[in-house]
Amino acid sequence: MISPQYVTETVTRALLEDVGTGDLTASLIDSSALASATIMTREAGILCGMAFASEAFRQTDPACQLDWRLADGDSLSAGDELCRIQGPARALLTAERTALNFIQLLSGTATTASLYAARVAHTGVKLLDTRKTLPGLRLAQKYAVACGGCHNHRIGLFDAFLIKENHIAAAGSISAAISTARRAATGKLIEVEVETAEELHQALEAGADRIMLDNFSLEQLCEAVKAARGRAELEASGNVTDETLVSIAETGVDLISIGALTKHVRALDLSMRLD
Amino acid sequence: MISPQYVTETVTRALLEDVGTGDLTASLIDSSALASATIMTREAGILCGMAFASEAFRQTDPACQLDWRLADGDSLSAGDELCRIQGPARALLTAERTALNFIQLLSGTATTASLYAARVAHTGVKLLDTRKTLPGLRLAQKYAVACGGCHNHRIGLFDAFLIKENHIAAAGSISAAISTARRAATGKLIEVEVETAEELHQALEAGADRIMLDNFSLEQLCEAVKAARGRAELEASGNVTDETLVSIAETGVDLISIGALTKHVRALDLSMRLD
Amino acid sequence: MISPQYVTETVTRALLEDVGTGDLTASLIDSSALASATIMTREAGILCGMAFASEAFRQTDPACQLDWRLADGDSLSAGDELCRIQGPARALLTAERTALNFIQLLSGTATTASLYAARVAHTGVKLLDTRKTLPGLRLAQKYAVACGGCHNHRIGLFDAFLIKENHIAAAGSISAAISTARRAATGKLIEVEVETAEELHQALEAGADRIMLDNFSLEQLCEAVKAARGRAELEASGNVTDETLVSIAETGVDLISIGALTKHVRALDLSMRLD
Amino acid sequence: MISPQYVTETVTRALLEDVGTGDLTASLIDSSALASATIMTREAGILCGMAFASEAFRQTDPACQLDWRLADGDSLSAGDELCRIQGPARALLTAERTALNFIQLLSGTATTASLYAARVAHTGVKLLDTRKTLPGLRLAQKYAVACGGCHNHRIGLFDAFLIKENHIAAAGSISAAISTARRAATGKLIEVEVETAEELHQALEAGADRIMLDNFSLEQLCEAVKAARGRAELEASGNVTDETLVSIAETGVDLISIGALTKHVRALDLSMRLD
Amino acid sequence: MISPQYVTETVTRALLEDVGTGDLTASLIDSSALASATIMTREAGILCGMAFASEAFRQTDPACQLDWRLADGDSLSAGDELCRIQGPARALLTAERTALNFIQLLSGTATTASLYAARVAHTGVKLLDTRKTLPGLRLAQKYAVACGGCHNHRIGLFDAFLIKENHIAAAGSISAAISTARRAATGKLIEVEVETAEELHQALEAGADRIMLDNFSLEQLCEAVKAARGRAELEASGNVTDETLVSIAETGVDLISIGALTKHVRALDLSMRLD
Amino acid sequence: MISPQYVTETVTRALLEDVGTGDLTASLIDSSALASATIMTREAGILCGMAFASEAFRQTDPACQLDWRLADGDSLSAGDELCRIQGPARALLTAERTALNFIQLLSGTATTASLYAARVAHTGVKLLDTRKTLPGLRLAQKYAVACGGCHNHRIGLFDAFLIKENHIAAAGSISAAISTARRAATGKLIEVEVETAEELHQALEAGADRIMLDNFSLEQLCEAVKAARGRAELEASGNVTDETLVSIAETGVDLISIGALTKHVRALDLSMRLD
Repeated sequence: MISPQYVTETVTRALLEDVGTGDLTASLIDSSALASATIMTREAGILCGMAFASEAFRQTDPACQLDWRLADGDSLSAGDELCRIQGPARALLTAERTALNFIQLLSGTATTASLYAARVAHTGVKLLDTRKTLPGLRLAQKYAVACGGCHNHRIGLFDAFLIKENHIAAAGSISAAISTARRAATGKLIEVEVETAEELHQALEAGADRIMLDNFSLEQLCEAVKAARGRAELEASGNVTDETLVSIAETGVDLISIGALTKHVRALDLSMRLD
Repeated sequence: MISPQYVTETVTRALLEDVGTGDLTASLIDSSALASATIMTREAGILCGMAFASEAFRQTDPACQLDWRLADGDSLSAGDELCRIQGPARALLTAERTALNFIQLLSGTATTASLYAARVAHTGVKLLDTRKTLPGLRLAQKYAVACGGCHNHRIGLFDAFLIKENHIAAAGSISAAISTARRAATGKLIEVEVETAEELHQALEAGADRIMLDNFSLEQLCEAVKAARGRAELEASGNVTDETLVSIAETGVDLISIGALTKHVRALDLSMRLD
Repeated sequence: MISPQYVTETVTRALLEDVGTGDLTASLIDSSALASATIMTREAGILCGMAFASEAFRQTDPACQLDWRLADGDSLSAGDELCRIQGPARALLTAERTALNFIQLLSGTATTASLYAARVAHTGVKLLDTRKTLPGLRLAQKYAVACGGCHNHRIGLFDAFLIKENHIAAAGSISAAISTARRAATGKLIEVEVETAEELHQALEAGADRIMLDNFSLEQLCEAVKAARGRAELEASGNVTDETLVSIAETGVDLISIGALTKHVRALDLSMRLD
Repeated sequence: MISPQYVTETVTRALLEDVGTGDLTASLIDSSALASATIMTREAGILCGMAFASEAFRQTDPACQLDWRLADGDSLSAGDELCRIQGPARALLTAERTALNFIQLLSGTATTASLYAARVAHTGVKLLDTRKTLPGLRLAQKYAVACGGCHNHRIGLFDAFLIKENHIAAAGSISAAISTARRAATGKLIEVEVETAEELHQALEAGADRIMLDNFSLEQLCEAVKAARGRAELEASGNVTDETLVSIAETGVDLISIGALTKHVRALDLSMRLD
Repeated sequence: MISPQYVTETVTRALLEDVGTGDLTASLIDSSALASATIMTREAGILCGMAFASEAFRQTDPACQLDWRLADGDSLSAGDELCRIQGPARALLTAERTALNFIQLLSGTATTASLYAARVAHTGVKLLDTRKTLPGLRLAQKYAVACGGCHNHRIGLFDAFLIKENHIAAAGSISAAISTARRAATGKLIEVEVETAEELHQALEAGADRIMLDNFSLEQLCEAVKAARGRAELEASGNVTDETLVSIAETGVDLISIGALTKHVRALDLSMRLD
Repeated sequence: MISPQYVTETVTRALLEDVGTGDLTASLIDSSALASATIMTREAGILCGMAFASEAFRQTDPACQLDWRLADGDSLSAGDELCRIQGPARALLTAERTALNFIQLLSGTATTASLYAARVAHTGVKLLDTRKTLPGLRLAQKYAVACGGCHNHRIGLFDAFLIKENHIAAAGSISAAISTARRAATGKLIEVEVETAEELHQALEAGADRIMLDNFSLEQLCEAVKAARGRAELEASGNVTDETLVSIAETGVDLISIGALTKHVRALDLSMRLD
């Protein structure tokens, strides 16, 4: 679901910042030397980022050939071989870091997502990412979130409404805001952020597609689920920590959004070894 | 030290991925409404990223005016006001997330860097970042590392030599690799990665500017410091954890490189509030 | 709702293709000469494209000042003055055609949209555009459609599902396709294209958000409206002509999509006159 | 005559706006499924745009193979197969609309051009396009105009002089304007726009290469042809309608410029069908 | 006649390659320090490149203000002050080299052009540049050629025909090539390269607009001028050296094209001094 | 050592400026005609620019095949065949000039560099280029300098310190400037420009890596070499002419920087001939 143009552009940018005016040290290697290498993981996790890594080698030298042993979304154990690479030795060394940077970032995010998802798998809740992402890498991160078994909230400001306090104040009321939104764009999800049961009630009456329950306590969440009776999707937001996640999921809300999925990064520990 | 073109390009890319075809919800706000807002931090840390945040508001609407109360590199306490913003209400809401994403990422990295630096401040060691960075964001991250009191290793493959195992094998020996490098490019730092005392000795003899001691034990590091007697900078690399950092620093090495500085991210917790 | 980066980029591209290596004839005008001009319309319609036209003059010379008398979405009568411009004479002549090309295209589309919308204003139907657009100009055209009182279908392949015959065949059934889509992406509209009453029934049962009735006769459309009873939005598609539009609208469908809105263009007849 | 870089860039931009963050619905298709398809026309016309369509499939997946049955400039009858395509099923569905948007636009313009050209084929007149084009698509449109048997006026402001009223006023006289232009750039066509027989006379005396007769009546055009006696090319402009076109052509002018060729668009009705 | 977009893009590219990840040394200067400076020339010549230099300072810091004492095309004496600059000290130092690189290149070319032009000023000949230019800098170089008093040949392959041996062979004859060219594009100069008097005769008969006399001796040139009797412009090409230039000009040819104008560069010797 | 992305981008830009809206004259050649050609040199020199030339043909038509007989850095004699090319005749003619422009520029620079280098080969001195380069072509030029046997100074402002008069004044003293620089960035060469023996002394004491001796006389240079005793690299700068070069080299300085290497260009005389 990642468009090839996006992969191409993102990898080009990354290679330009790393290779810049040329790999100084690679000049010590004979330009005709060939080599083969293996990308391995030193820790368990979920693989994500194959297309980016392949593109990094391909852009550096089209003669590089990659043979992936695993695919995006697969589980990794420490010591697993992800990929075998053959090609010009210089190209392998030059592209190595850029390729690994993509896989370690995206596999890290996929892994984090899978850990969150596993903890709430006994409930029907979907875990969502947010717009709190690394600048310029949002689509790649959202792809990793999905590889890890969580789900994507809106991509950006353009593909769904999220009506907050200031929008409501400008429109005059929740119902006015929703009906204006409904007229302004058809087919777009309309979500309203509410902070009280009274606002939740207004949003339900006004026909919001989804309602974000901002910093609701567990008790308030349970009441909200009862009040909604399926008339709108309910999304819990705020106060989501390792301690509270499962309890929130068990309140029966449909969705929980977690900024930590994409604003924090714990890179997976990978390495490439030449034979 | 961040070039304005870099800031402009990086912010443009981030805004395009967030705003895309337009901020749907912003259409609920009157286009002539003005507003003012405050960016605050919910936790302590080091500020980094002012130029990126300012550019995000400016690109969204040149009428936005920012009044920064603190500057990159300043210490933040929870609750501090970073910046006051005035401008069209729509622009403030549209640019908010992109601006915060930059500051939370870069301040997070500056903060991490400052914590590491503080732990070894009693030694003369310099802590270095690596090329393990977020694709497309290396320069911004390196700037944040410096704001936090650590130092930048080479920017990419183009501005210093780092001669590793495969380069040495291709050149025939450490001394051959160094002399080839010296001929190939003048004025560039030549660093050699070594794994044994014997290799360290060869690198010292061959006149390396800097020697990376890869996965040396504390004892080996101490011996290396003695052996070098200042003839080359010594950089410890690998096995650097929260537990070992201080001990490594106290061996007397000149430099310690830490991938975790830039490959992991813990975003600072910020918010923007409209008045 | 058009992002300023999009306007900037689109205008830059247009100016580059027109001005190229420089306006040869403008060199006959003294470089310090100032002028003022008026953009007028020779025919009635709906104005659209102010931001693009302003940007064309601004990019050519920041000293150009535009004073708009009307705004996007306003009705125009033949002879109306849209805008007064003051600035360097060379810049006015150089930017004229590019500025007019944007307004004539977008106002033409807004005008067409308003004519369609007026014919069905007595019904509750919303008229939708499609992805049949001019390559590279989709967002501008969709903005014009909205200025003219019609509505936007999905922006592209990324912001809604439109499940067609081949997707259904691949998934095995309409219900399988919908449930896969629901799992694949949350918060995105799921629309299914159906060609028979039986398929409509399946799509309704499977909980499609919207159902595209492809080439249904008027009679079939009426039956579909009855069958749906509001359980899903119904969109008529195909066979929409000047003759059939009103009849289709009166069947009670919620939406009618019209490729002609954006794949055909009838430019509005405008001119710029120097005083 | 379309440069490959131009095709690549234009198609990339079009695909980015359509595919954006990925084709949601394509995820319902197995990623390894192959398919074949046929692009057909539902109406007669002139084919134009092969290179753009091929590039759209190729950029989406290099494994797509196109077998064109007809070439740019060929006549199409309703029902003709234009092209057979084989490749990954996802890629065929993802690239379909972008590819068709190019062919329907450019074939539409080529078809319009061929209809105009056919009506004046009994005269020696050449029909010209203008700079009234779709922003960002001028070169593609001019290529389509030529495929349809009409001719290209200047590409932009940079490759010929077109001296109008304001330039003449600035230069002092038609002859002064022409001699300044002649000095300013060698080898560029110098065209002067005139509104009266007196101005025509001055332009002829001053040695204009081409003279645009703006809004001349049929009688005035005939007199102009007599007056010019081949000393300059004469181009009729303005007042060109379906009714007047043939009469104007029969006056003996060399060229007639028609804004409608490129400012209006009537897309050809095409479809792609999977086998 | 240089479009502002071209200046902006060209300067951005130049600054990016020079400033890259930031001006290391500028960090020694206080960020709030202001300075003023003067750009001077150490040798005589013709000024060219103001817009590029101004843009370099402006992009580095919009607070820079330039006060030009001379304009493009003006004569310079050794020691002349070209420009006074005020602004942040860091910006002045950072932009200095990029700004000077533009002026020294373009003034160098303008100066060379003026020297050539002066030598043939007693004849009516126009000296032309060629397509032998520095990759990516053609428009800037052609602008400099014109500032120096020479003239521009075609800008590229797109704005005039230059029919050479291989084109003639493909078309069958000179006359066939010209008539095909005439049909293929209207309003474009058609030039034919000939190597013999016989080919010259054919080109004249076929109505070429301009004829390039390739490596003709002085005697052959004189005969060509007689043979042409003004029926086509004659351009001498090849064998043009410092020794032969004046003699060629005195044969009466209309044009002489000189690759050396743009393929060789002798930069003007400039400096910037801070007060 | 030239990154493939850089070659691709630089060639794309050059082809766009030359081919623009298409090669008019190439349309006289049958689109299916094949041809073969040879690139030859008319004068002796050093070859440089293969990758750029190959890319120019490849971008014009991927069917072009190049068979290089010599490689970058090889010596050329007048009449040598550099390369045989086979491919579509149109593509060969369209790409010819752009390909040659790259080789003639870069081989010209490599040749100039080799001539300088040969004159000082009996000494141990290294000749350096400077930042006085052609805007947008610095990396290509620096690559050519290295091909010709000279060496590269810093690439830009980002990869080494060059502390000049104004930086020293701002820091307070040479030693203060150096220690600030040392703190600001590790692993970067620190060079100081000095104008007197006293400043040289201060720079040596302060531990500069390299010292630029600005406009020192031969006698002063000899004394500087003695004073330095290898404690820092010494670079002579200024007053370097054809007459003084060898004498300066023989003073024993380590490095001589020569702006003329890259600010002046003498293109090598090449041609492409179709069989």
